Amino acid sequence: MDVFEALYTTRSMRRVKEDPIPEEIIKTMLDAAIRAPSGSNRQGWKFLVVTDQETRKQLGDVYRETWDYYMKEFYGGKPDLGASGVGDDKKANQVIRISKSAGWLAENFHKVPAHFLIFSRNDPTGSSIFPAIWSLMLAGRAHGIGTCLTTVMSFKQKEAFEILDVPDDKGWSLNAVITAGYPLGKWGVAERNPVDEVTYLDKWGNSPNWNLEEPLWNY
Amino acid sequence: MDVFEALYTTRSMRRVKEDPIPEEIIKTMLDAAIRAPSGSNRQGWKFLVVTDQETRKQLGDVYRETWDYYMKEFYGGKPDLGASGVGDDKKANQVIRISKSAGWLAENFHKVPAHFLIFSRNDPTGSSIFPAIWSLMLAGRAHGIGTCLTTVMSFKQKEAFEILDVPDDKGWSLNAVITAGYPLGKWGVAERNPVDEVTYLDKWGNSPNWNLEEPLWNY
Repeated sequence: MDVFEALYTTRSMRRVKEDPIPEEIIKTMLDAAIRAPSGSNRQGWKFLVVTDQETRKQLGDVYRETWDYYMKEFYGGKPDLGASGVGDDKKANQVIRISKSAGWLAENFHKVPAHFLIFSRNDPTGSSIFPAIWSLMLAGRAHGIGTCLTTVMSFKQKEAFEILDVPDDKGWSLNAVITAGYPLGKWGVAERNPVDEVTYLDKWGNSPNWNLEEPLWNY
Repeated sequence: MDVFEALYTTRSMRRVKEDPIPEEIIKTMLDAAIRAPSGSNRQGWKFLVVTDQETRKQLGDVYRETWDYYMKEFYGGKPDLGASGVGDDKKANQVIRISKSAGWLAENFHKVPAHFLIFSRNDPTGSSIFPAIWSLMLAGRAHGIGTCLTTVMSFKQKEAFEILDVPDDKGWSLNAVITAGYPLGKWGVAERNPVDEVTYLDKWGNSPNWNLEEPLWNY
């Protein structure tokens, strides 16, 4: 797969089939992930791949509990993730779509065939771990695997560590859980605010005026 | 370019030529970057591309000052980044190589033709910005542009904000500076600790024993 196809179409795929991911693909994803850069090339990372059904069930209980808490605490229990406050129909609809999809994941976490739990240490900024995580997801995309980056479980790191026998005195943090499986939906180019709106040249506020309204890569 | 070639060979390229990067390539890098996922698709990011010579010079002064401080504070002024404490000749040599290369960058920051300064807000974990940053670097790689992710300048965010007219009351943080240019060195597959050493299955400590000693992708 061309690198731009991967970069443009690796969108969050929360809804996936229960079919297992072949071990060869899991290896490929991990071997790509560890090529990413990290500060001073320290590689302070661990990748824990969970496919065991009972462990997924236990993690799923924690995930759902955290998700419910998160929804209640940050959005007052409203399932629309605050979409009503967005004030723009198109964006509000997108927020509602994401919210529904995220709710699906919370309900079906234990049915997702593989979870990659990513741990790092000595990386307070995330700069030395998220490139590796994104590489894992891009490599999965190249093999037709849909993934979603979630940070929800980090709120319940203690519970997750207990389920997975992670030592709590070695400085490891749980950065993310990448859920993975063959997607139920279709691949496509993610919709985003255009480059001109988020880019400046030389000084803050100095728009490039490139008029890049459409993605530079498309099917 | 195949996605795996990009994932395996986008290593830190600090030493680059002074030749400018064509604007079309800069656009391509940014347009790829904004396709990356962010929490709830909030896209709370700004990309500031600096090619202006005077601005690069001013940033270079701040960068070098910060680098010198960093070296002194964390490594007691020893230019080997603590390599002597590594206790493994191969790894110590690698640390020395990185240190020399990083020193080159500090000395020549103003000669690097383009700097991408990346800002985000409401993203304490880095999970919503570093995928975009890594996409920018991978897209550059596909066009032969060498990049290096540095977080050094975040220590001098105030000075950088002043140079670039960034408002300091809007919640923006400087996550990274990506230096970019045509590389002086050669592309290659980055050397890393193998997957077996950093991967567990289902429970912490449970090695997969895949014996992936060599990269799964190579020239």
